[in-house]
Formats: sequence, C-alpha cells, structure tokens
Amino acid sequence: MWVTVRDLVGSCIKLNWVTLWAQVLYDFTAEPGNNELSVREGETVTITNQSIGGGWVEAQNSRGEVGLVPEDYIEVSYIVSVDVKSMEEMPAELIPRSVSLLQATNGNDPWSAWNADPSGGSTNNWASNPEGTQTGKSAPDPWAPVSHGHPQAYQGPGKKTKKKKTQIASGTMVVLLLIRKFCLVSLSRFPGFSKSGPELYLLCKQLVKGKDRLPIYVGEVGPVWSYPETQLDCVVADPKKGSKMYGLKSYIEYQVTPSTTNRPVNHRYKHFDWLYERLLEKFGSAIPIPSLPDKQVTGRFEEEFIKMRMERLQGWMTRMCRHPVVSSSEVFQLFVTYKDEKDWKMGKRKAEKDETVGVMIFSTMEPEAPDLDLIEVEQKCEHFSRFTKSMDDGVKEILTVGHEHWKRCTGPLPKEYQRIGKAFQNLSSVFTSSGYQGESTLTDAMTAAGKTYEEIAQLVAEQPKKDLHHLMETNNEYKGLLGCFPDTIGVHKAAIDKVKEGDKLVAASKITQQDKVTMAKRASTMSYALQAEMNHFHSNRIYDYNRVMQLYLEEQVKFYETIAAKLRQAHSQFTTM
Amino acid sequence: MWVTVRDLVGSCIKLNWVTLWAQVLYDFTAEPGNNELSVREGETVTITNQSIGGGWVEAQNSRGEVGLVPEDYIEVSYIVSVDVKSMEEMPAELIPRSVSLLQATNGNDPWSAWNADPSGGSTNNWASNPEGTQTGKSAPDPWAPVSHGHPQAYQGPGKKTKKKKTQIASGTMVVLLLIRKFCLVSLSRFPGFSKSGPELYLLCKQLVKGKDRLPIYVGEVGPVWSYPETQLDCVVADPKKGSKMYGLKSYIEYQVTPSTTNRPVNHRYKHFDWLYERLLEKFGSAIPIPSLPDKQVTGRFEEEFIKMRMERLQGWMTRMCRHPVVSSSEVFQLFVTYKDEKDWKMGKRKAEKDETVGVMIFSTMEPEAPDLDLIEVEQKCEHFSRFTKSMDDGVKEILTVGHEHWKRCTGPLPKEYQRIGKAFQNLSSVFTSSGYQGESTLTDAMTAAGKTYEEIAQLVAEQPKKDLHHLMETNNEYKGLLGCFPDTIGVHKAAIDKVKEGDKLVAASKITQQDKVTMAKRASTMSYALQAEMNHFHSNRIYDYNRVMQLYLEEQVKFYETIAAKLRQAHSQFTTM
Repeated sequence: MWVTVRDLVGSCIKLNWVTLWAQVLYDFTAEPGNNELSVREGETVTITNQSIGGGWVEAQNSRGEVGLVPEDYIEVSYIVSVDVKSMEEMPAELIPRSVSLLQATNGNDPWSAWNADPSGGSTNNWASNPEGTQTGKSAPDPWAPVSHGHPQAYQGPGKKTKKKKTQIASGTMVVLLLIRKFCLVSLSRFPGFSKSGPELYLLCKQLVKGKDRLPIYVGEVGPVWSYPETQLDCVVADPKKGSKMYGLKSYIEYQVTPSTTNRPVNHRYKHFDWLYERLLEKFGSAIPIPSLPDKQVTGRFEEEFIKMRMERLQGWMTRMCRHPVVSSSEVFQLFVTYKDEKDWKMGKRKAEKDETVGVMIFSTMEPEAPDLDLIEVEQKCEHFSRFTKSMDDGVKEILTVGHEHWKRCTGPLPKEYQRIGKAFQNLSSVFTSSGYQGESTLTDAMTAAGKTYEEIAQLVAEQPKKDLHHLMETNNEYKGLLGCFPDTIGVHKAAIDKVKEGDKLVAASKITQQDKVTMAKRASTMSYALQAEMNHFHSNRIYDYNRVMQLYLEEQVKFYETIAAKLRQAHSQFTTM
Repeated sequence: MWVTVRDLVGSCIKLNWVTLWAQVLYDFTAEPGNNELSVREGETVTITNQSIGGGWVEAQNSRGEVGLVPEDYIEVSYIVSVDVKSMEEMPAELIPRSVSLLQATNGNDPWSAWNADPSGGSTNNWASNPEGTQTGKSAPDPWAPVSHGHPQAYQGPGKKTKKKKTQIASGTMVVLLLIRKFCLVSLSRFPGFSKSGPELYLLCKQLVKGKDRLPIYVGEVGPVWSYPETQLDCVVADPKKGSKMYGLKSYIEYQVTPSTTNRPVNHRYKHFDWLYERLLEKFGSAIPIPSLPDKQVTGRFEEEFIKMRMERLQGWMTRMCRHPVVSSSEVFQLFVTYKDEKDWKMGKRKAEKDETVGVMIFSTMEPEAPDLDLIEVEQKCEHFSRFTKSMDDGVKEILTVGHEHWKRCTGPLPKEYQRIGKAFQNLSSVFTSSGYQGESTLTDAMTAAGKTYEEIAQLVAEQPKKDLHHLMETNNEYKGLLGCFPDTIGVHKAAIDKVKEGDKLVAASKITQQDKVTMAKRASTMSYALQAEMNHFHSNRIYDYNRVMQLYLEEQVKFYETIAAKLRQAHSQFTTM
C-alpha cells in the first residue's frame, strides 16, 4: 500500500506536492532483464512513478538512469507546501514524528512559533534537524503510546500554538514540510488514528444492520465470536513464475485452494498484501491482523526463499481462515473464491470503497449480553494489555534462545562432533599401521565409532529444521500477532478515556446526556469485542502451543533415540575381553 | 630429584659451586603455619637449602625472609667456576642449552673463543644474553634431537674449540658459568646421554648373570617379555594428612596395597617420585617409564585435587604393575612390600647404589632367539619410531578435541539448555496469568517440559565426568608413555650408529674385530628388548582402548537414552486434541 499524505491529513490541511525525494537505505542489485535499477546505500534518487505497485517504485538516479527499485529499500520523503494557518490543525500524532520546516516564504520564522527545538529553526537545510534524520532510521517501539514516542519532539500543536499564536504570520504564508514515508506507514498501522479516533464510532448516529452484523455470544469461557459449523481451510501451493509488462517484470504466483469450493485461484504476493491492507483497514481496530511474511527483493526467485515464503503465506492464510470474523468477510471470501478476472477486479473496487472500516467495525457488533460498566471494561482492557505485553516478552525470549540454539546446532556443535569422529578414525588408522597382529577388531570398531560421530554431527546439524523450525515459526507468528495488540488495545483505551470525559463534555455542551449514555453502551460493545477476540486468541494459543510443543518434543525424542541407537551399535563392535 | 651439575659433568670438568641463585616463575602464596615463603613472579631469591626434598627448596628473599618454596615455581641457576681448559671437555649436549659466560677472571674474553653469538660476549650481565633467558621458558620439543634443539646455539665445543684454540688462555684461568636447572633436568630425561652413551653397554666386558637376568621369549606376536602367572595389582587408597618437622610441614600419605601380600604400606607423593626416578634411571633406556601426575603446590590439600592425584597415582601404579619387568624389579617390590621403616631405608639406599642402570639394563637381557642383522634392527627401530610419533599425534588430537568438547559441555551448552528450559517455564507462567479457563493441562505440561530442559542442562554438564573423563585420562596416560619413546628410541638409534661405525673403529684400532662382533650382537639384543617392549605396549594399548571406548560409548548411550526418556515423559503430558 502506498500511503499518501493526502489520505492522512488531506481533510484538515490544504497541501500541494512539491517533489518526491528518496534516500537509499540498502544496496540493491538489479536482476538482469527485469527493468530494475541498481542503487547503493546512501545514494539519493527521485521517484518518477510511485504507482507501479507490488512493492516497487520507479526511480531516477543522479546519472539520469531510470528503473524499478523495491520501495522497502528506500526512504521516501514527501516535500509538501501547506498554508501556515493549517499547521494549527495538523494532527498531533503526525507532526512530532515527521514534519520539519524546510523554508518559509517570508522573513518571519514560523517554525519558532510551534517548535521549541532550536535546531528546528534552521530554514533551508532539513538534514540539519537531527530529529528529522533519526526518526526514519530507528525502529519505533510499538508498545510506546504514539504521542510519547519521541520525548524531545514537539508536544502537539494544540497547546503551543495557542501560547505563541501572536508570533505566527497570518494569511497566506506558505511553509515547506518534509514528511517521511516511514512515518506515514507507521501511522497507518494505528487504525484508530489514521482514519479517525474512537469517537467516530462512539458518537455515530446509525449502526449497521443486516447481513454485516457480527454477533457476540457468551459461551463457557465468556464472550465469543460466532463460529461457523465447518471451519474454512486453504491450501497455498504450487508456486509458478509468471511475467507481465511484456516480460519485463517477473513474479511468483501461488495457487490458493479453499476447502469450501476446492477450486484453486491464483494470487501473487502483492495480492496477499492487498488483502492484508483491506483486513487491517477493516478489522484492525478490533482484531489483530498479523503482517504478511517480510517482503524480500534480492533472491526472491530462489527456490529456498519461495518455499519459505509459501510456508509462511500458508501459515498466515490458515490463521485468517481460522478467524470466524475474518474468514467470513466479503473481502476474504472474494480473495479465495473469485470466479474470474472481472469478478476479482469488481470485488477489489468494492472492497476498497468499503466504509465500515477502522473503528466503525464496532458498529456492526451486537453482543447478546447485558452492558458492562466502565470499571469492568477498563479492568479487562488493562488485563489484556498486561497479558499480551508479558506474552510478547515470553515469545521473544523463546525466539532469542531458539535462534542461538539454532546457530550452535548448525555451527560449532556438529563441527565438534565431526572432529571427535575424525580423531577416533585417525587414531584407528594409526593403530592399523602398528603391524601388531589381531587388532583389526579394535580398529574396525574405532573406525565405526568415528563414523558414528560424523553421522551424529550431521544429525545435529539437520535437527533444527525438524523441530526448532516449527517452534520458531509458531513463536514468530505469535510475535506478529502480539505486535498488533498495542494498536487494538490503544483504540479501546482511547474509547475508555472518551467515556470518562463524558460528564465534562456534557457540561461543556459538546455532547448530549443521551450521547454520553450511548458512548458508555458502545464502549461496552467494544469491550465484548475485545473479550471475544481475546478468547479466540487464547483458544488458538492453547491449540497452537500444545501442537508445537508436542511436535518439538516428539522430534527431540526421535533425535536422541536415533543417536542412542547409533552409539549402541557402535558400542557393540568392541570386544569384551 | 635434585639433579646436580656435579652428577652430570663432574667426571670431565673440575668445578666449584659459587652460589645458587633463582628467579621466581610463578606467584606462590604460602599456606599459613606451613613454614612456606610467599614469592612473586619475577622476584629473585637465593637458595639456602636445596636438600629439603619432596619438591621443595629453602629460599631467602631480598628482605632476608627464609622459607620453603616449591622448586617447580622457581628457575634455579647454578653459578659455577670451571677451569677454562675444561671447557673443551664440556659435553656438547650441555653447553648449547645452558651455559653462559658470566665473567672472566683475566682480561681475555674466553667466551669469544667458543661462542659465535656476539651477545655472549658481554662479560658480567648474564641477562643480556637472550638465548640464556629464553631457554628456560619455552617448553622443549621432546621429539627434536637434542643437538638441534636450538638452531642459533653454540654448535658443540669439539669443532669450534679446535678452530679457535689459539685464542684461549691456557693454564689456570677460571671462568664463571651460569647453568640453568631446567637444562639439567631436561638432560636427565635422556638416559642415554645423562649416564652414558650406548657404547657403555655395547662394549662392556661382563654381562649380568643370575637372578637379575631378563629373558626375552619369542611368542606368537614376536619377542615378548617373560610374564608372571598372576599379574601384580595395587590399590592406591585412603589419603591421609600427615606432618613432619614438628608439625611445620604437612603432607598427604596414600595407602598402597599390593595384591600379593594384601598388606598396605604408606607412601607420600615424594616416595612415588623417588620410585619413578629409580625406575627411570634403571629401565628408562629400554622401557618407557611414564611421568607421575604433575606436581602441584597451590591447593594441594584440597579434596578434589587429592582425589584426582590419587586416581592418577593409581593409574600409574596399575601401569607399572602390569609391566612384567618393572613390577618384578627389586626396587618396585621394595616400594609395595617393605616391612618397616628400617627395611624401607635400607632398600632405598641399596636401590640408589644400583649400578645396572641406564643402558646397562640391556646387559641383563637374554633373548632366546637368533641374532638379528643390523638392517632388520634398523627397520624395526624406524617402524617403532614412526608408529609412536603417529600415535602421539593421534592421542594429542583426541586430547585437544576432547578438551574443547569438555569446555562446551560444561560451559555454553548447559547454559543454553537452561535458558531453553527457563523460556518454556516463563511462557508457561505467562499463560497461567491469562485468566482463560482450562489451560492448566498446557501450562503444567509446558512447565514440565521447561524443567526437563533444566534437567538436561545438568545431565549435559555432568556427563563429561562420566565418560569423557576416562577417555581423556587414558589418552593422557598414553601421551605420557609416548613422550618417553623418543628417548628410548634415541638410545637404539645411537647404538645402531655405533655398530655402523664398527669397521671404521676397527680400522682406526679403537676397537677389536671381536668388539665389533659383540657390538652387533648386543644391538640385536637391544632390538629384541625394544620389540618385546613394543609388543607389551601394543597388547596393553589394545586392551586399554577397547576398554575405554566401550566405557565411553556405554555412558554416551545411557546419556542419550536418559534424555530421550525424560523428553518422552515431558511429551506425554501434552494433550492430543
């Protein structure tokens, strides 16, 4: 997805594109005959076409060469001009992370009016603003609240603008802003903020009725989604190389076969990515939608990579299929059962126009249970927040330990067993040279023992693929899922805060008493949704960890038993004297 | 054993002690109440009493403090004066490694006459001679021939002295020589050189008859020693702390019980050392006498050390008991069966006066087989030399690999299993906090799996003591044994060379024709002895490696089976859904 500034801030700020400028983050070597452009880390390019799609942009380097570059390999900056007046209305979440003043068109320095950072006062060299250059490179902490992510950053325009308002030139003065793509994408991950705050739902007039209705029942474990009788399942298989643009661009197409129709449809990675964006947009406020496996550009046609990506796409699809809300959604059904290209194109257009997105998804939910009071809602939310944070830590610990174990099992450990094996064999061949009669039993046995240790070396090196791999993949999936919770929980916390403000808002005549009652009721609905989702998460978690631990231990048992059997065989060759 | 310069060169050089001076090689901290002296690396002390024994000398530091210091911790230099004329007769093996000129008593510089090294010309600062200071620190290569050990060293006095004879002042001129104890001890390990060359035996007039006779038979595998019907065995046990010098010095006494009398005798480490020196002196030219376990000073009263030393003394005793020639010798029998203190003292005195030592041991040997021709003798010797060198390499490889494996098994590997175990348990306790009902089966199983990996960590860390330990100890013993062969084989090669010179020596009337025939016959006897010894070595080697490999693999099988069983148990706790 190519997020535009217009999407994000268009509603409140009048802005014009000036240019699209990008800095290369990693070396990229063009694959021959693929219309690609080789770029080096640190190089600067201009974006000549951002609507290529599939994770690619067309860029021009300083030598005038034009070609496709993976968008993940570059950091794009949008240089836009905005009316200085609009600065007051700039969303607080956007500015601290992403806006630097480039230059003012009159003598006044409007920057000083709304940014206390003295380095921000430099007027025509954006690079001299250390905040601006650092933001794009350091990974943001998804667990940190957005508005506190950057301690030294501008604290939001609302308050400061009011204080120093007199310093701002009024009228038509224009400033140039540099907005990093990174920040935009990052913001787009916060559905509650990118589209609207929870108040959009809390205070909206009409709720969705009819077929889009999402009931929430109360089961044995508490609130639960409505589960279908038979669970959808999809097989992702048979990756094939295709091409487009008269053969200039190659890609890999996967066959996706749903258990309902048993009829395969073809999808490229970019289609999965499109589905992911739709699901995120539509359900992200209520349901954690895990990211797809990483985009990768270099070596993307290599067999090993294709196999791994397919395995992970399969994992992602299985998880989506297992979710009753996601799997029964129109967009997901379109993805797995579209009839032909026309059907797909039309469905796509419809999905992109869907207005029940962001927090509005809650408007479709109907808990069949009495409303919860705010204290209960808040306690549940706090509990889920603590749990998901702890589990995130636990999962990351397993990944760290597992990664180190993987390295040892495939690196130094088998080398050591191999050396032990070689040492036994070498000594055996020295013994053979003794000329002393009747020691062949010993030397044969020692050679066999040596070979056994060489076999053990190989077993050790191959074992992680058999057991640790699944443990790592499952935990990786959960890391991805858990990484979505801060956003989901953030929306709930914002809603709770809004409800808490209820009396104040009524007193200030910003909302009616009825609005206040509605808000509390809807916060309860959001809580039921969160609880249903947590219960879905827990039940899947219990299933997944049971399965993966069983698999891991089963393979570990086999591994140690195989080694023991090999050694017992080696042992039997020595004579007892 | 405290080797004196007088022992080594007394016969050919008139010399007088001037002083005993020592440099401290390692820090040593005195044990309180043990009459010891703390010394620091690099410090200089004077030796006030070298006849303390048991690996100790009495030393005085620069502050006048006197106390006992372990002799291995210091490098003693003997400063002796010799008649300059005697320099011509100085054994070639001694000078290059150990003699530096300190000062001449007259104006001439006699050093320049017999050492081409310009730095040797400095007359009163021995430390300025880099050869001198380096020799003591670098470990000598036992496989390198003595005379080539030091490429830049003086090439032996015989030739150079002749060339530059005119430069040496004649008469009573005296020079001071610095002789490192290290070099003396090192030389003492070459029985062929320290006592006499093989010609002493090859040309001696009378051979030993009677009870000291050592027959060599020809068995199935070739020449063999005469083996007793029942093999002697000794148990080394029950280490007890004793003291002497009115309680000033403490020591550990071991109980040695031979299978013949079943009556225990007590021995300190220094008694074992005395026995070792006697056996080396008596049999070292024909039979590899492995060194005792290392002397160690710091922590020598610690339980772990005492246990390890006892185990190794046991190993050494067992090996000596197994040797038919060694175990039946008078000195060995004295050691294991002496009746009382008086018996022991008398036996000791007698053993120290034994004249059938060094190459003269061959005079007791009587092969019951036809004489071998020189070519055969030479081929056998070459073959044994190659074999023992290869086996030494093989054994060292196992020790190196085993050492690294030991470190991994007791260091990073168990830590990793522990971290895996902790990670499972941590995730399990996060799961427990979910509040979701009915997941105790999973969390109990995950906790159990985590604990299992902690148990595996402990098994891994303790395993080397159960299996690798024996493998390492056996190979260490063999490393010690094999380290004796270069000397033993060196004596044989020297004898072969002497026999080859036979015709020349007859022509020069240095020996008679009969002497030549005798020499060849005796070289054949030496070869039978070497073959009998090699056959003894081979038969023991086959037994030892069979046994140790069986033990190792047996314990390895148990180890892997135990882990597999533990994991199977952990696996069974997960439910199949």
